[in-house]
Amino acid sequence: MTSSTLGAVARPQADDSSATVTTGPIEGSTKHYLTVDHLRIPLRRVQLTNGDTLDLYDTSGPYTDPGAAIDLDAGLPPTRDRWRRPDPVDGAATQLAWARAGVITDEMRYVAAREGVEVELVRSEVAAGRAVIPANHRHPESEPMIIGKAFGVKINANIGNSAVTSSIAEEVEKMVWATRWGADTIMDLSTGRNIHTTREWILRNSPVPVGTVPIYQALEKVKGDPTALTWEIYRDTVVEQAEQGVDYMTVHAGVLLRYVPLTARRVTGIVSRGGSIMAAWCLAHHRESFLYTHFGELCEIFRRYDITFSLGDGLRPGSIADANDEAQFAELRTLGELTTIAKSFGVQVMIEGPGHVPMHKIAENVRLEEELCEEAPFYTLGPLATDIAPAYDHITSAIGAAMIAQAGTAMLCYVTPKEHLGLPNRDDVKTGVITYKIAAHAADLAKGHPRAQRRDDALSQARFEFRWTDQFNLALDPDTARSFHDETLPAEPAKTAHFCSMCGPKFCSMRISADVRAYAVEHGLVTAEDIERRLAAGMAEKSAEFVDGGGRIYLPVERAS
Amino acid sequence: MTSSTLGAVARPQADDSSATVTTGPIEGSTKHYLTVDHLRIPLRRVQLTNGDTLDLYDTSGPYTDPGAAIDLDAGLPPTRDRWRRPDPVDGAATQLAWARAGVITDEMRYVAAREGVEVELVRSEVAAGRAVIPANHRHPESEPMIIGKAFGVKINANIGNSAVTSSIAEEVEKMVWATRWGADTIMDLSTGRNIHTTREWILRNSPVPVGTVPIYQALEKVKGDPTALTWEIYRDTVVEQAEQGVDYMTVHAGVLLRYVPLTARRVTGIVSRGGSIMAAWCLAHHRESFLYTHFGELCEIFRRYDITFSLGDGLRPGSIADANDEAQFAELRTLGELTTIAKSFGVQVMIEGPGHVPMHKIAENVRLEEELCEEAPFYTLGPLATDIAPAYDHITSAIGAAMIAQAGTAMLCYVTPKEHLGLPNRDDVKTGVITYKIAAHAADLAKGHPRAQRRDDALSQARFEFRWTDQFNLALDPDTARSFHDETLPAEPAKTAHFCSMCGPKFCSMRISADVRAYAVEHGLVTAEDIERRLAAGMAEKSAEFVDGGGRIYLPVERAS
Repeated sequence: MTSSTLGAVARPQADDSSATVTTGPIEGSTKHYLTVDHLRIPLRRVQLTNGDTLDLYDTSGPYTDPGAAIDLDAGLPPTRDRWRRPDPVDGAATQLAWARAGVITDEMRYVAAREGVEVELVRSEVAAGRAVIPANHRHPESEPMIIGKAFGVKINANIGNSAVTSSIAEEVEKMVWATRWGADTIMDLSTGRNIHTTREWILRNSPVPVGTVPIYQALEKVKGDPTALTWEIYRDTVVEQAEQGVDYMTVHAGVLLRYVPLTARRVTGIVSRGGSIMAAWCLAHHRESFLYTHFGELCEIFRRYDITFSLGDGLRPGSIADANDEAQFAELRTLGELTTIAKSFGVQVMIEGPGHVPMHKIAENVRLEEELCEEAPFYTLGPLATDIAPAYDHITSAIGAAMIAQAGTAMLCYVTPKEHLGLPNRDDVKTGVITYKIAAHAADLAKGHPRAQRRDDALSQARFEFRWTDQFNLALDPDTARSFHDETLPAEPAKTAHFCSMCGPKFCSMRISADVRAYAVEHGLVTAEDIERRLAAGMAEKSAEFVDGGGRIYLPVERAS
Repeated sequence: MTSSTLGAVARPQADDSSATVTTGPIEGSTKHYLTVDHLRIPLRRVQLTNGDTLDLYDTSGPYTDPGAAIDLDAGLPPTRDRWRRPDPVDGAATQLAWARAGVITDEMRYVAAREGVEVELVRSEVAAGRAVIPANHRHPESEPMIIGKAFGVKINANIGNSAVTSSIAEEVEKMVWATRWGADTIMDLSTGRNIHTTREWILRNSPVPVGTVPIYQALEKVKGDPTALTWEIYRDTVVEQAEQGVDYMTVHAGVLLRYVPLTARRVTGIVSRGGSIMAAWCLAHHRESFLYTHFGELCEIFRRYDITFSLGDGLRPGSIADANDEAQFAELRTLGELTTIAKSFGVQVMIEGPGHVPMHKIAENVRLEEELCEEAPFYTLGPLATDIAPAYDHITSAIGAAMIAQAGTAMLCYVTPKEHLGLPNRDDVKTGVITYKIAAHAADLAKGHPRAQRRDDALSQARFEFRWTDQFNLALDPDTARSFHDETLPAEPAKTAHFCSMCGPKFCSMRISADVRAYAVEHGLVTAEDIERRLAAGMAEKSAEFVDGGGRIYLPVERAS
């Protein structure tokens, strides 16, 4: 793993002199590309010691390609600049408008190959508004991906500095680091200094779609006084970010004046930053927010760039006590109305959800969202299944995230161990991403995703055959798996040993079964029929034979297909 | 936090000179006792800065009581030695026999007070075999607890050394450490040297029930050759452990000869240590195992001591591919037959389950177990919801554990980050325990456990009111929550600051809502009626008032009851 330094020119603070981004392939994997016409779709190939290979979906961009020259000052080479862009349909130059018109775009072809599905499935899901392809025309560096329940469950990693800590260089590395471990999109939630510059650095170097919450920058422009916000200031901020290439934007247009009192009896009131800002504005001016009253104008801006709406859940529950309450579902109803409006402009839409929700109330969120929002892709934070584990909220939320994804959520917004406590550092970002890859993959398995179980089967086969290196390299985090094993058995021979320190040599059930496989092959006993015949016939003979054989179990094992 | 040294006499190895156990109260909590007649039930009281207190279920024993003198050589003072023991019923001196006869034991009274339920609920659930109270007459040091779906979900922590690593002193500390963080029972799975001595040290110092898998020690007695095992060697080992005070024993009596070939086509064969040992024996001798053929004699031993059966799932799936297969459910059917036999002897029974199971196949395991095993308490390992995350299997399994507990599992066997990779160390044990407390608590919330949500509400209220210290002290792991917060804001004033480094001062939604509460109280606007009235009446006036008020939201917030 080598690294590339953030150019001195752009280095915003002296304390960043050591700032770098991580490059080089993931342990045990090599970068490959699938070529479809002029499209070059990246994939990660894991080479196994038994000669097999397994190709995996790859979100890491050129950073894991040793052949790519990484120059953060120059930004990534554009992936999409020479792709065909169809003419607008009724003023909308969006994937939704094209899909409805039956036009197959390069972005659709690209994601179809990436997901391993027919391009017609992609087109029809996008046309129906059940899937989105967030791809601002001004973000050509991004590698298109699709968010929808018919496809693999995706995850988002939030990065961005706050006024209290972090710098541009750190945030760029967090973006590279998050996508290295599997983040499908990232959101830049910077609220401190250098918001514009930070976002520029991230966009020019990001291989995945980038989302933002424009109200944060707008608030900075009015010195943090929510009541001083205006439509004009907000609109100009959106245009500024649209020109930079932001692929999707969270808009809290569903926070209506009459909903605010519904949060009065809550244990944790309003916990969404954007939600609290808009509630402040609505109450101060006693008017519906400019996000709601100017929603049509916003749609016109979005469709010019093909920016995807992420309709924000400003009233999401911040505690178990507040889950699924009137405030939350009243806002969801309004998001449904806004979905219909946005789609009438040809603009792609996804809906943000959960927060803190106990397990028995999770499915209801998906059912209602699909019913009220025309099955627009659901994009949920967690949810956290309990409030009592600060410092472990990546885990409390992975439980809820896996369940809500199984129920139909298309993209999961990660939660790191620092949630509620502080700004996540680089290690927290990795922990959050790996944890959410687990939740997303568990949901893909539960939904019967055609390609999901191949990785589980390959890893379990490697585990059963004591191919330790393959087991590490097939893991979501090869580095940590290897280091945990080596803590107690660092010697190289242990990489092929038929046990680990958990049970020791004598008690390894897999070692016993492995001995048996050899024994079975040796004696030509490899099918279940063989066993049944032999069990029926002379067992005494077999029994003696077995004991002579050194006390191994007579248990044929077939290679899993 | 002070510590007590493991006496030199017993110290098995020179390298243990530094071995200690952890004592002293958990940060922010004090030890209290609830007195019922001659019974003294421990509880942990969290003192909050607003004057409130919250009492929590306490598994940590005398180690967190500054008033208790800890002497590992002497062992813990017996809790139960002067308790009344009723006469045996039909030869059975067990909680089950007494419950069926309508006898209320001190153990039943103790767990009823501990759970905060009527003692009759305890008696009737035990009588029905839907709950067990594992309490060997020879383990008077233990503080009785109950395992059943009508009560709080419990968790078990596995400890014990393997031939490759660890020592007695380390294992005793792991036991103390695991119960400190909430382990309801521990299992000593030692397989290396000093099995008997290690177990003696753990039992004499354990405040929670201790479980074992006797076949491990029996195998040591025959130098690790499964085919050399006999009923006599096994029986003598069981009696030896029974005399020491083991509260429950895992017995893999359901591994029948005809089931072994059913594992032939599996990706990971047989992954249970006990299961692979018994399969080896059955095939070598071509007979059903002595565990099955001598099951009645085993029941007679168990009922003399009131040892609880934990009928082992020797054929549990070790990979997603093998979940819910014929081998697994065939064994479960046999465990159902053995449950009926054990209960006919008056012996308490629980059933072991899962392993690796995808989310959509989890509920089926509980449904079948209840149908086939007379609703005996289900005790499951995880299950892991995917195979692809070695080094994160505490998380892959917490997802499955929370879901299977919601479906009715009574006790969850933890999984640590070292699963599949090595023997867990002290840190891994804590991570595993905290992770499983999360899964168990999430399930208690989902099942509507009467006391569960009090802790979530208290913590969320503290969070909303920026009582950082209370938030830390109410957390499952106060130490880590505090250290994560202090990484970026170590100064003492930050403990009352109305923000953290995650969002910074200007963007803290809770800070805004908190300002509002003050504002609302200031203006006598504390009920929803007030707001509605004011919203109806002069909003212009209010609006002006609001802006004068410094731009705070006009949003009354009531104290949550």
